[in-house]
Amino acid sequence: MAGRKIRAGVLGASGYTGADLVRLAAGHGALEITQLTANAHAGKSMAEVFPHLGRLDLPRLVKVGEADWDDVDVVFCGLPHGTTQEIISSLPGTMRIVDMSADFRLRDPAVYAQWYGHEHRAVALQGDAVYGLSEHYREEIASARLVACPGCYPTATLLLLLPLVGAGIIVSDGLIIDAKSGVSGAGRGLRENTLFCEAGEGLSPYAVAAHRHAPEIEQELTRGAGRDVTVSFTPHLIPMSRGELITAYASLEGGACAGDVRKILAERYAGEPFVRVLDEGQAPRTQMVRGSNFCDLAVFEDRIDGRVILFSALDNLVKGSSGQALQNMNIMFGLEETMDLGQQPLFP
Amino acid sequence: MAGRKIRAGVLGASGYTGADLVRLAAGHGALEITQLTANAHAGKSMAEVFPHLGRLDLPRLVKVGEADWDDVDVVFCGLPHGTTQEIISSLPGTMRIVDMSADFRLRDPAVYAQWYGHEHRAVALQGDAVYGLSEHYREEIASARLVACPGCYPTATLLLLLPLVGAGIIVSDGLIIDAKSGVSGAGRGLRENTLFCEAGEGLSPYAVAAHRHAPEIEQELTRGAGRDVTVSFTPHLIPMSRGELITAYASLEGGACAGDVRKILAERYAGEPFVRVLDEGQAPRTQMVRGSNFCDLAVFEDRIDGRVILFSALDNLVKGSSGQALQNMNIMFGLEETMDLGQQPLFP
Amino acid sequence: MAGRKIRAGVLGASGYTGADLVRLAAGHGALEITQLTANAHAGKSMAEVFPHLGRLDLPRLVKVGEADWDDVDVVFCGLPHGTTQEIISSLPGTMRIVDMSADFRLRDPAVYAQWYGHEHRAVALQGDAVYGLSEHYREEIASARLVACPGCYPTATLLLLLPLVGAGIIVSDGLIIDAKSGVSGAGRGLRENTLFCEAGEGLSPYAVAAHRHAPEIEQELTRGAGRDVTVSFTPHLIPMSRGELITAYASLEGGACAGDVRKILAERYAGEPFVRVLDEGQAPRTQMVRGSNFCDLAVFEDRIDGRVILFSALDNLVKGSSGQALQNMNIMFGLEETMDLGQQPLFP
Amino acid sequence: MAGRKIRAGVLGASGYTGADLVRLAAGHGALEITQLTANAHAGKSMAEVFPHLGRLDLPRLVKVGEADWDDVDVVFCGLPHGTTQEIISSLPGTMRIVDMSADFRLRDPAVYAQWYGHEHRAVALQGDAVYGLSEHYREEIASARLVACPGCYPTATLLLLLPLVGAGIIVSDGLIIDAKSGVSGAGRGLRENTLFCEAGEGLSPYAVAAHRHAPEIEQELTRGAGRDVTVSFTPHLIPMSRGELITAYASLEGGACAGDVRKILAERYAGEPFVRVLDEGQAPRTQMVRGSNFCDLAVFEDRIDGRVILFSALDNLVKGSSGQALQNMNIMFGLEETMDLGQQPLFP
Repeated sequence: MAGRKIRAGVLGASGYTGADLVRLAAGHGALEITQLTANAHAGKSMAEVFPHLGRLDLPRLVKVGEADWDDVDVVFCGLPHGTTQEIISSLPGTMRIVDMSADFRLRDPAVYAQWYGHEHRAVALQGDAVYGLSEHYREEIASARLVACPGCYPTATLLLLLPLVGAGIIVSDGLIIDAKSGVSGAGRGLRENTLFCEAGEGLSPYAVAAHRHAPEIEQELTRGAGRDVTVSFTPHLIPMSRGELITAYASLEGGACAGDVRKILAERYAGEPFVRVLDEGQAPRTQMVRGSNFCDLAVFEDRIDGRVILFSALDNLVKGSSGQALQNMNIMFGLEETMDLGQQPLFP
Repeated sequence: MAGRKIRAGVLGASGYTGADLVRLAAGHGALEITQLTANAHAGKSMAEVFPHLGRLDLPRLVKVGEADWDDVDVVFCGLPHGTTQEIISSLPGTMRIVDMSADFRLRDPAVYAQWYGHEHRAVALQGDAVYGLSEHYREEIASARLVACPGCYPTATLLLLLPLVGAGIIVSDGLIIDAKSGVSGAGRGLRENTLFCEAGEGLSPYAVAAHRHAPEIEQELTRGAGRDVTVSFTPHLIPMSRGELITAYASLEGGACAGDVRKILAERYAGEPFVRVLDEGQAPRTQMVRGSNFCDLAVFEDRIDGRVILFSALDNLVKGSSGQALQNMNIMFGLEETMDLGQQPLFP
Repeated sequence: MAGRKIRAGVLGASGYTGADLVRLAAGHGALEITQLTANAHAGKSMAEVFPHLGRLDLPRLVKVGEADWDDVDVVFCGLPHGTTQEIISSLPGTMRIVDMSADFRLRDPAVYAQWYGHEHRAVALQGDAVYGLSEHYREEIASARLVACPGCYPTATLLLLLPLVGAGIIVSDGLIIDAKSGVSGAGRGLRENTLFCEAGEGLSPYAVAAHRHAPEIEQELTRGAGRDVTVSFTPHLIPMSRGELITAYASLEGGACAGDVRKILAERYAGEPFVRVLDEGQAPRTQMVRGSNFCDLAVFEDRIDGRVILFSALDNLVKGSSGQALQNMNIMFGLEETMDLGQQPLFP
Repeated sequence: MAGRKIRAGVLGASGYTGADLVRLAAGHGALEITQLTANAHAGKSMAEVFPHLGRLDLPRLVKVGEADWDDVDVVFCGLPHGTTQEIISSLPGTMRIVDMSADFRLRDPAVYAQWYGHEHRAVALQGDAVYGLSEHYREEIASARLVACPGCYPTATLLLLLPLVGAGIIVSDGLIIDAKSGVSGAGRGLRENTLFCEAGEGLSPYAVAAHRHAPEIEQELTRGAGRDVTVSFTPHLIPMSRGELITAYASLEGGACAGDVRKILAERYAGEPFVRVLDEGQAPRTQMVRGSNFCDLAVFEDRIDGRVILFSALDNLVKGSSGQALQNMNIMFGLEETMDLGQQPLFP
C-alpha cells in the first residue's frame, strides 16, 4: 500500500449514510474516493445531490453497472437492504468490502429469510462475512474480505450489553431495550412519517416488537451469553436528525450492584478510543456525541432491588454507520484504527 | 350556582401550567377568572407575561397576599411544589381547591418528607385531599374540597396501568416504565438544561430512578393492586415543547395475551370521553393529542413470551395538568364533565 | 337557517389545510359536516388519515365524483391548485363555496395563466369570486356565492400593508417583503425538501422572486393604492410546523413617522376581533398566534431616515387558511363573525 | 516556531463560542491549549462543563487572574463584551490576541460608547486592533498583535456586500439587511427567550433597528464604499441551534443585472477556500454549512426592476466566530490559512 492511497468506491452515495461516509472518507489521509454510485441520481455530481459537499473533488455519480472496479481497492456499500447481496456477489474477489446494509449481518439464512421476507441471494458470501462491531471483532475484521457493519441500534446495544452478558453479571433473559432514534435513521427516501410536520414536535414508537434489528441483537447476545437470548426491543422516533439512545433494563445476577456493572464496562473499554464509560450519576445526552464516532455508556441502580438501568448513546450516522465503517476499514488495511476519525462532537 | 358564573382564582398564573389553565378557563362558559397571582411578575398584566393571551379580559397579576378571596369560589394552584401547602392552608374553608402542584398527591407524610426533603406543612389538609385522576376517582372528586391533580407522568401511567393491576392481568412486580416528556414539563424557570441549544436536537434521561413521580405512581398502583408495588421509572427529556409518552413493559399473569389486555382497557374506558384505546397494531403519537385533553392507550404483544408492551400518550400541559384540572372542576361543581374541554388536537 | 345546521362539505380533506378546517368546523355550533372528499385516501375514515381527529363523528372520505351534493349547503375546497376550478364549475349553482386554493384569487385570467402555466378553466366563475380577506371585503363576502380565500402570505401581508397604501402613508414603490413560513405551508405531499432531516435545524429561501403569492399581493395592493404596485417578495422555509412572519420594509411618504403608521393600523383594526396591533417596542412572535385566528401587527422605526419596518405574524393554517375560511363562512351565512373561532393560541 | 507548538490560551472557555474554539483548536496540529479560563465554572474540568469534549486532554478551567501567561503565545478571547478590554489591556505585550468579543471591532470610540453604553476602557489598544475579516484584511491580520474578529452577522453581511459596494455595482444607500440566526448566537447564559419552549416552533424579530452589529456593518461598508453608509438591519431568532442567513435587498447601479453581481462575487472569491458563490438559481441553506468554516453566497434578480436579492449563509459559531478566529490565527502565525479548518459540513 506504500506510496499510494487506498482507492475507495461508495455504492449508494446518494443516501444519508453514503453521504456521511463520503464526508468522512474525503478527509481521510489514506483514502482516495474513485467511484461513487447512485440509482436515481446517476449522472449528477455529488454537489448537486448534497450541496454541503460542494467543495470536495469527487467523481460523478454513476449507475452501479457503470462503475469501474479496476479502480477500487475497497468498496463501502450504503445500498438499500436486499439489493446489496447481488451486487456484492458480482464484485471482483480481490476487492474488500465494508457493507453498511443489513444483508450480511445475520449469520443464519433462515433467520434472514424470516425477517427480510425472501431467501438470501448470496448465501455463500455469508460465510465469509465478519460482523463488524469493531471493539469486539477486531481480529476477525482485520483479515476479513467482507465486513458487515452492525445496524445502528445493534451497535449501541451490543457495546453496552455484550460485555455484561459475557461476564454473566446481568441475566440474559427478559432484557428490555427501549430505543430512541433521530429521523435520519429512516434515510432520505420520501415517506410520510419522516416529513417535518409529522416527525416534529412529538414522538412515537414504531415497528413495535417487529424491528429487524432485534434478531441481529439476539444473534450477538446469544453468542456472547452462550445461550439463547430473546430481547424485548421497542424503537421510538424522536424529533431530531441525528442521535440514538438505548435505555436497557436488566436483572442483576447474584449479589451484583450497579457499581460492579459500571466497573466491568470501564475495564472492558479502558483502552478503547471511541467508547466513553460515564462516571456514576452522569447521564448520557445524544447531543454530546453528535457528529462523532463516540459511544457513551452509563449505568444506574434501579429502585427495584436487583435491577439495573443501562444507557448507550451514539450518533446513528457515525458510530452507528459511516464512522464505524471507516474504523473497520482502518483495521482491515492495517492503519491506525483511529485514523482521521477524531472529529469532536458538534455541540450545540 | 344558577344565574352566575363560578368565580375562579389562579395561583401561579405566570408559569406554563398556569397559563394553560387560563387559556382553557377563559373559554369555559361557566367560569369567570377573578384573581390571578404571580410572584416576580406581580403588578403586570397577563398580556405582558404571556402575549398570546393578550386579547383576553383578565385581572392583573397580584401577589398571593394581595388576592381578594371573597371574590373566589374555586382556586386553581399552579405554584411550585412546597409553597402550595402553606398558602392553601390559609385559604377560606369554603373555597374549593384544584391543586396542580405535588403537595397533596402523596397520602403518606413520611413518603412526602422522604422525596421532597422536608416535613409536610399542612398534614391536616392531606386527609381532605382527593387524588384527582378523574376517570378513577370521579365520585370522591365530586364531593372533595381539595383535589390534588396527579403529576403528568402519573396521569399517563395510571390511566394505562391501573385497570390492569386492578384486574390482575399483569404482574405488579417488575413493572418497567420508560417515560418521555417534552420540555414544557420543566416549566418556564431559567435552567441550563432547558435552553434551546441544550435540549434541542438530542435527548437524554434525567432523574434516573430518582424522579418524584415514582412514589406517586407506586402509591396508586399499590392501592389498585392491593399489594406493595415498586416500579422502575426512567424519564427522558425529548426535544419538543408538549407531549408525553409512557412505554411500559410488563409480564402477563397466567395465559393472558395482549388482546386480553387491550380488551380490558377498551371496556374500562368505553364510555370515557377523553381516553382513546387504539386498535391492534396502531401506535400512539404524541402529535395526535397535542393541545387536547385526550390520553391515547395502546397494547402490543412482546417478542418475549408472556410479556406485553404498553403505551400511553398525552399532552403534559393539558390532560397532564390544566385540562385534567378543569375536568375535575367540572366534576366538583356538577357540570358536564366534558364542558368546554372539547378542543381537538392541534396537528400538525 | 333556523332549526337546522348548515351542511358542509370539505373537498380535499386529506391535506393539512383540509384537516385543520375539519378540526375547526367540527367544533362549530352552526355546522354539520356531511361530506368529505379525498383522492388517494378515498374509502378510508378520517381517523385513519388523521388519528388526532379520531373521536369526531365524521363521514367517510369519498372521491369527489361520489359526493352527494344534495346534502351540502356550503363547500370548503382544500384541493390542489388547478383541480379546483373544474370541480367547482360542476357544483350545483345553489351551493356556496369557500375556496382555500389559489384558483380564484387572481382576477386577471392572463396573470393566472402566466403564473400557473395554463389557461384558467373556469373564467366565467372568476367574475363571481370575491377575494376573501375578511377584514377588508366583508360586505362583498356576505353576499358572494364563491369566496376565494387569500393565500397565507397575502393574508399576512395585506392585513399589514393594505391600510397603509390606502392611506398613502407608505410609498407603494419598492416595497420589500421578506417572508418566513413554517413547513406545513408545503402540505402533506411527499417532497424531499420538507423531510425532517432536510427542513430541520436550518433555514433557506425558496421560490425567490418567483412565488405565486407575489402577483396576488400585487393585485390587492394595486387596488388599494390606486396605482400599479410591484413588490419584492422572498419566502423562507423555517424549521417549525406552523407560523408565518412577514417583515416588510417601506419608505414613508412626506414627514410621516413610525408612530403615524402604527396609529393608522391601530385605528383601522380597533374593532377587529382577530387583528392585534402591538404596542410600540413590542415585536411579534409566531409562537403567540399558533393555533389561533389572530394576526399580530407591529411597526418599528428604521435607522435609515424616512423608512419603517413592519411585521405581521399569523398561523398559516388558521388565519392563513382554515380559520379565515370559517370566518368567511360566518359572514356569508349571517352568523356572528367570530362564532367558534375564539380558540386562544397554544403556547408553548 | 519550528519544533514546538504554539501555546494557546482561551479566555471564556465556558461559553458556546469558547467551547467551539476549543473543539477546533484541540484538533489543530500546530496548537497546544495550555490555559483555559472561566468565571463561574473556574475549578472545574472542561469535561464537566462540556461533556462532549470529555476525551480531550485539557487544562482545568481557572479564573482569569490565575492564568499563567508565561505559558501562552496566543490568546483567544470569548469573553462577554465589556470585560474583554480590561483583561486584554493587562496581558503581556508580547502575546498575540484573537478577540471574538465586540470590544475592539468599532474603530471610533464615540460610536462604541453610543452603542455599548460606556466609554471604551482601552482606547489605546483600539489603534492596534485589526478588523479580522480574513478574506478582506489578510495582510493587516498577518502582522497584527490584536485581531478583532467580526461579529457573526457582520461576517456574513460583509463577505456578501463589501465587494459589491467596493465595485460600485449596488447602491450603498437604502441597503436592507434581513438577518436570521440560530439560538446559539445568544450564548449559554440563562435567558427566558432562549428556553426551548420559548424559541422553539416559532420565530420572531429582536433588537429591531437597535442591534449592535449594525454600526459594525456600517463602519466597514462605509470604508468599502468610500462614503457614509447607513443600513436597515433586522435580526430574527430562528428555531435552530446553529446557522445564520442574511437576505439583503439592494438597488443596482446603472444598467447592472444580477448576473453582473454574481460575476463580481465569483471573481472576488475565486481563490478563496471558504467562500462558495452558488450558481444561478441555487439558493443557500444553512444546513449546508453547519459545523464548517464555509460561507455560501447567492444572487437573484428581483421582480422590481433594477433591484437584486442577495444571500449569505454561514455557521454563526464557526465562520461567524471560532472558525474565523482560527483562520486568523493561521494567518497571524504564518501557517497555511486553511490548516485544520477543513471539516466538511455536518448534514443532516
